[in-house]
Amino acid sequence: MKPFSKRTTSLLVAAGLGLGAASSTWAAESLQDVMKRRGLSQQDLLAASKTYVPTGKRDDFIAFSSGGQSGQVIVYGIPSMRILKYIGVFTPEPWQGYGFDESSKKVLRQGNIDGKEINWGDTHHPALSETNGKYDGQFLFINDKANPRLAVIDLRDFETKQIVVNPIYKSEHGGAFVTPNTEYVIEAAQYATPLANKKFVPLERFNEEYRGGVTYWKFDRKEGKLDPKESFSLELPPYSQDLSDAGKLVSDGWSFTNSFCTERYVGGIEKGRPPYEAGCSAKDTDYMHVINWKKAAELVKAGKAKKINGHDVLMMETSIKEGILFLIPEPKSPHGVDVTPDGKFITVSGKLDTHVSVYSFEKIQAAIKAGKFESKDPYGIPVIAMQDALHKQVQLGLGPLHTQYDSKQCVAYTSLYVDSQVAKWNYCEGKVLDKLSIHYNIGHLMTMEGDSADPKGRYLVALNKLSIDRFNPVGPLHPQNHQLIDIANDKMQLLYDMPLPLGEPHYVVAIDAKTLKPGIRYKVGTDSRTDKPHPGMVRAGEEKTVRKGKNVEVFGTLIRSHITPETIEVEVGDEVTINLTNLERAQDETHGFAVSTYNVHGSIEPGKTITVKFKADKEGVYPYYCTEFCSALHLEMQGYLLVKPKGYKEVKVAAAKAVYTKADYEKQVKTNVETQAVIDSVVGYITSVNYKDFPPVVALVEDATDQLNKAGEAKAKMDEAAKTSDWQNATLWAGQWWQYQVKAADIGLRAKTFLEQNGAKKTGK
Amino acid sequence: MKPFSKRTTSLLVAAGLGLGAASSTWAAESLQDVMKRRGLSQQDLLAASKTYVPTGKRDDFIAFSSGGQSGQVIVYGIPSMRILKYIGVFTPEPWQGYGFDESSKKVLRQGNIDGKEINWGDTHHPALSETNGKYDGQFLFINDKANPRLAVIDLRDFETKQIVVNPIYKSEHGGAFVTPNTEYVIEAAQYATPLANKKFVPLERFNEEYRGGVTYWKFDRKEGKLDPKESFSLELPPYSQDLSDAGKLVSDGWSFTNSFCTERYVGGIEKGRPPYEAGCSAKDTDYMHVINWKKAAELVKAGKAKKINGHDVLMMETSIKEGILFLIPEPKSPHGVDVTPDGKFITVSGKLDTHVSVYSFEKIQAAIKAGKFESKDPYGIPVIAMQDALHKQVQLGLGPLHTQYDSKQCVAYTSLYVDSQVAKWNYCEGKVLDKLSIHYNIGHLMTMEGDSADPKGRYLVALNKLSIDRFNPVGPLHPQNHQLIDIANDKMQLLYDMPLPLGEPHYVVAIDAKTLKPGIRYKVGTDSRTDKPHPGMVRAGEEKTVRKGKNVEVFGTLIRSHITPETIEVEVGDEVTINLTNLERAQDETHGFAVSTYNVHGSIEPGKTITVKFKADKEGVYPYYCTEFCSALHLEMQGYLLVKPKGYKEVKVAAAKAVYTKADYEKQVKTNVETQAVIDSVVGYITSVNYKDFPPVVALVEDATDQLNKAGEAKAKMDEAAKTSDWQNATLWAGQWWQYQVKAADIGLRAKTFLEQNGAKKTGK
Repeated sequence: MKPFSKRTTSLLVAAGLGLGAASSTWAAESLQDVMKRRGLSQQDLLAASKTYVPTGKRDDFIAFSSGGQSGQVIVYGIPSMRILKYIGVFTPEPWQGYGFDESSKKVLRQGNIDGKEINWGDTHHPALSETNGKYDGQFLFINDKANPRLAVIDLRDFETKQIVVNPIYKSEHGGAFVTPNTEYVIEAAQYATPLANKKFVPLERFNEEYRGGVTYWKFDRKEGKLDPKESFSLELPPYSQDLSDAGKLVSDGWSFTNSFCTERYVGGIEKGRPPYEAGCSAKDTDYMHVINWKKAAELVKAGKAKKINGHDVLMMETSIKEGILFLIPEPKSPHGVDVTPDGKFITVSGKLDTHVSVYSFEKIQAAIKAGKFESKDPYGIPVIAMQDALHKQVQLGLGPLHTQYDSKQCVAYTSLYVDSQVAKWNYCEGKVLDKLSIHYNIGHLMTMEGDSADPKGRYLVALNKLSIDRFNPVGPLHPQNHQLIDIANDKMQLLYDMPLPLGEPHYVVAIDAKTLKPGIRYKVGTDSRTDKPHPGMVRAGEEKTVRKGKNVEVFGTLIRSHITPETIEVEVGDEVTINLTNLERAQDETHGFAVSTYNVHGSIEPGKTITVKFKADKEGVYPYYCTEFCSALHLEMQGYLLVKPKGYKEVKVAAAKAVYTKADYEKQVKTNVETQAVIDSVVGYITSVNYKDFPPVVALVEDATDQLNKAGEAKAKMDEAAKTSDWQNATLWAGQWWQYQVKAADIGLRAKTFLEQNGAKKTGK
Repeated sequence: MKPFSKRTTSLLVAAGLGLGAASSTWAAESLQDVMKRRGLSQQDLLAASKTYVPTGKRDDFIAFSSGGQSGQVIVYGIPSMRILKYIGVFTPEPWQGYGFDESSKKVLRQGNIDGKEINWGDTHHPALSETNGKYDGQFLFINDKANPRLAVIDLRDFETKQIVVNPIYKSEHGGAFVTPNTEYVIEAAQYATPLANKKFVPLERFNEEYRGGVTYWKFDRKEGKLDPKESFSLELPPYSQDLSDAGKLVSDGWSFTNSFCTERYVGGIEKGRPPYEAGCSAKDTDYMHVINWKKAAELVKAGKAKKINGHDVLMMETSIKEGILFLIPEPKSPHGVDVTPDGKFITVSGKLDTHVSVYSFEKIQAAIKAGKFESKDPYGIPVIAMQDALHKQVQLGLGPLHTQYDSKQCVAYTSLYVDSQVAKWNYCEGKVLDKLSIHYNIGHLMTMEGDSADPKGRYLVALNKLSIDRFNPVGPLHPQNHQLIDIANDKMQLLYDMPLPLGEPHYVVAIDAKTLKPGIRYKVGTDSRTDKPHPGMVRAGEEKTVRKGKNVEVFGTLIRSHITPETIEVEVGDEVTINLTNLERAQDETHGFAVSTYNVHGSIEPGKTITVKFKADKEGVYPYYCTEFCSALHLEMQGYLLVKPKGYKEVKVAAAKAVYTKADYEKQVKTNVETQAVIDSVVGYITSVNYKDFPPVVALVEDATDQLNKAGEAKAKMDEAAKTSDWQNATLWAGQWWQYQVKAADIGLRAKTFLEQNGAKKTGK
């Protein structure tokens, strides 16, 4: 990379020297000292300044990345490249309770195939919902290549709400891609198989009976769900369909799916035949499929589809006859097909060709209208000549794969796998503008909202498939490397290497952070997977345990720092159902719930209700507890599941002796009064400044007030016990009063710190 | 926080202005422009310069964090705070194939309890193996609180090798902690239960029959395994034992375990009783357990232990009689117990006390030798008076929890949960040195090797339990926040906010990166979970499929970019075993393996052999493929599992017609000759410089040479086919030759880029 200009460098060095000489305060080490100690160049410092996000500040964009074989979705911030969340999608994940509580288990089990539990997925291509071709921040879709499935994630709470299984494929690579108003989510098959389920056909009948396809899943935005009944597929030849993209603006209503192995080669290296990789890359071109999905949907409505496995499929014959399916040759084993923001062009890269090919939608339409085809493929699909559809071909380098777009007119970026580079080029004029080396072997790449109708520019992320020597070694299995690149200027600048610690992401989409409006709590008693009131919810004071025969059902609650009930008594063999509602209203006050050795875990965010179920098949004593460090006394947020032998008779045991005396009681009350003085002083500070101008503080004050109200309830119980000289319970309730005070003080101190650090001003009141 | 000195600030501003005025090269935006645009202060820039790690550079320390309820271990670099890996431990994880291939499944299933599969864990406290009290970088231990288990991770490959189940507890919080030469790994119970398995005892018999304990797991370093037969426990009172630490140097041979709820309170909020949190925090002090573990081990060897569930337990009576167990009061509901680097002091923090208490090992020993005890607890254990053991008590603030040590003599750091602060203080003189606000509610904290006999100073990480408003919102479930703090100077400086995207870490340990020596490949054919040769391994050319009755066993291989075999044929109902060996020697050339809809996934790093098993119970055609983007043609790394109906008779089908002609063959050969010229020029460059001085390049050159050798093999097959005018196969083998050339070119270009970017010099040869 090029150095700074000489003048620039010397000025910064001068600054550094200046810093080095000064500083008698806490900055014991100057900026130049640090740069020297850590071996940072001026360019490194500039890069650092472009990615560093100080405490309390926010990232500009939020990226949603596939997690590859982890079966999850990865959420990270740009430009800091900090991972904010892994979302459980196809793989059970206990931290979120995903696949552990009954509601999330139901979502996960929608993904069973042929009655078999699938506990992982090979997530590939996330897609954000769009309105008029622009990201609207409402939903995220993600596919599973290994087991042909699609999932829907709601961006109000970042939870997976639905999984659907493709009814006719055995694998799918080319999903999820949405149409401009999220009418449909596109999912294309990859490896051809017979479409009828559980049908065996020998490989010798590959050309005749194996098939590919592309599915259009209808999305019901109001329900937030894909609607299988309104969804349909097109039968396609046994070419390995690969990626897809939907047309937009001028090309809205059409979609494009490319393919490889149009050679229809069947390997057999174990029998001395060349492997798939040779046979599937022998020809110089493969085919882009051009599909009129709007007309296809009408044809399905008109009853022209055939039912396969109960699913509407437009057979090739129909698609050809109705003029909704065309092919165009595309150079060699292509991977990406990417529609430009204006919808006018489609760029395709052939992995084994050095060019990127830009097709013109206008030319494609002209050829179709004129009925000008160079040939038909072996299945009778009309083939448009490449030269009749091509706008430009640009030589970029070795192994071009995917293309994304800039906010600047005509500017595109393409990944070069073999060259390990990103090429910046102009697709209108067909010229290369810049190249940047990455580390190493880039697959997808991504610009901000760069596959939408309104790209935001500024940053590009290179999804490198190998990291090799970039990070500290962590054994034979390496992290991936997502590199952040500044694309705001003429020359690209590499800013940051981000290791991906779990999974091998394939594609990622990034949205302007301001477009997302996630919630921080649920309405009390919500089943988050259905977004409906949970039948197991109860409010504080209504907790109960109900037995019906062998079924014991608990309706419990969680709040800092106790679980109600604190004892659950069952007999061995009972079926136990535990419903738990988190009564907290405070942000980030999640509680967890675990029962020793029963493989039970739940994550219960503020307002959520969950259900866990298990059979109490082991006699004994099993502690349960909150797995979150939710307050200073989180370890004391505990209880016991008692599993008694069958027909167990209660043994009369003498009540435990009282331990605490009037003196203990009075001592505790004295402590409480002193603690109240501390709280009063914090409250005094908060109300003396303009705290109402700080929404996070207003929320904290509400939470603190809530805790103090609870303190009042405990104090009332204390007074009642004291009245009857029950010093044992009076002391303990005095202790509970103090617990609430401690929690209120905790919150109050946080609010005070926030106000002090964020420039609150005295109101003079 | 305090600002820079005036002079410093003005100089840096001057520098920024200078930069702003210059720069006509790519750095279109100056440092000052960036700071202004992004709202960064001078202090932010200094912090950025302290954490930013440029591409290709390494972190100084590697942190191993518990993953909380994710059941995993999180590995991250310091100071960059980038997560490098999630290691599957108690939870199945498909990216790593953990719990999916047979060997890793065996490790995971060692953690079954009462025959029940447990698919998660609540990991709490990681511990690195030690030699002479210092981290040696060989092994990592981690516990599961919910289901009392311990796991061993080998730091040569960062894989979990063993899980053991505690034979007498139902939960355990206070593990893992190692003795100074990793003789034992300490694990303490948390919630008291009857020690005999599956024994029900009513809560009314809590004091009499519920028990706590501490277990000493013998570690066999040569085998890299915990040895249950040589391990033992001490029965302890039903106090909730909490954290532990081993003595070191002067206190070697002793260990310390604290506790809460020595009130032995049993809750019952559902019956109108005060909750656990009140009853368990009523007393002003709890107990630190002081144990002579060396003598305990001798007593067990001498046969003084009682067998409970087949495990050696020293009963309280014995421990008291033999003088190996003592108690010392410690203030209120303590959480951390941390031995100083010199082994002379033990610091304890009471969550509900504002002090940290420093106990002197010398004073404790003097009291024991003198038989000077203030009392006995209800179980007859001698209690040393607090004032007889105390060195200092220092008032730090609200909610003190854990303490870690600096490389500077006598300097310690303690987390303050309620105050949301870190306190820096001097434990020799007992005075507070500095305080820093964190965000928010810190649990553990960690300095570099800060719990070893040789702390490294420099950085501190605050493990904050709440992040609240620190990051972009991602729904009701928030990430955790680990904040990096510079402790090299007198005043602490907050450097970086790191979100934890999966799990709720409890504790973390960090080791000097130079001490770790992980490998990058296995000896070919290794079962990584046993570190032994895998019986299913084969070398290239030896692949085979063996049928024995209903059992079909495949012995296959993986190499860029084909799977051998490419077809697996079975009958419905067959039991299928697939062994796969990754033949790659190149770093980071991992292959994955998935079979459509059969819930099968493997991760096969270079040299590894794995086995996956399933029943082919569904007739049909099921693609399999490599799930890693391992080369440009990774999608073509595919094959078919054919599940035929029972008694299926092969149908004679005409062989596919030849597609390729002599002209195709000659065209491909021409391409190959041209490609070879490119390769030769890259090789020419590499050999013209001092590439042997760059170990990563030497490795790449070896890999490229390997690919070119394989190209030779494909060329030989091509020549053979051409000799018999079999242009079909000649063309395809020519294509395969080219595939190997492309891979060699890919590697060569990576080597060339590396040399250019790292200042290789012409050798003049």
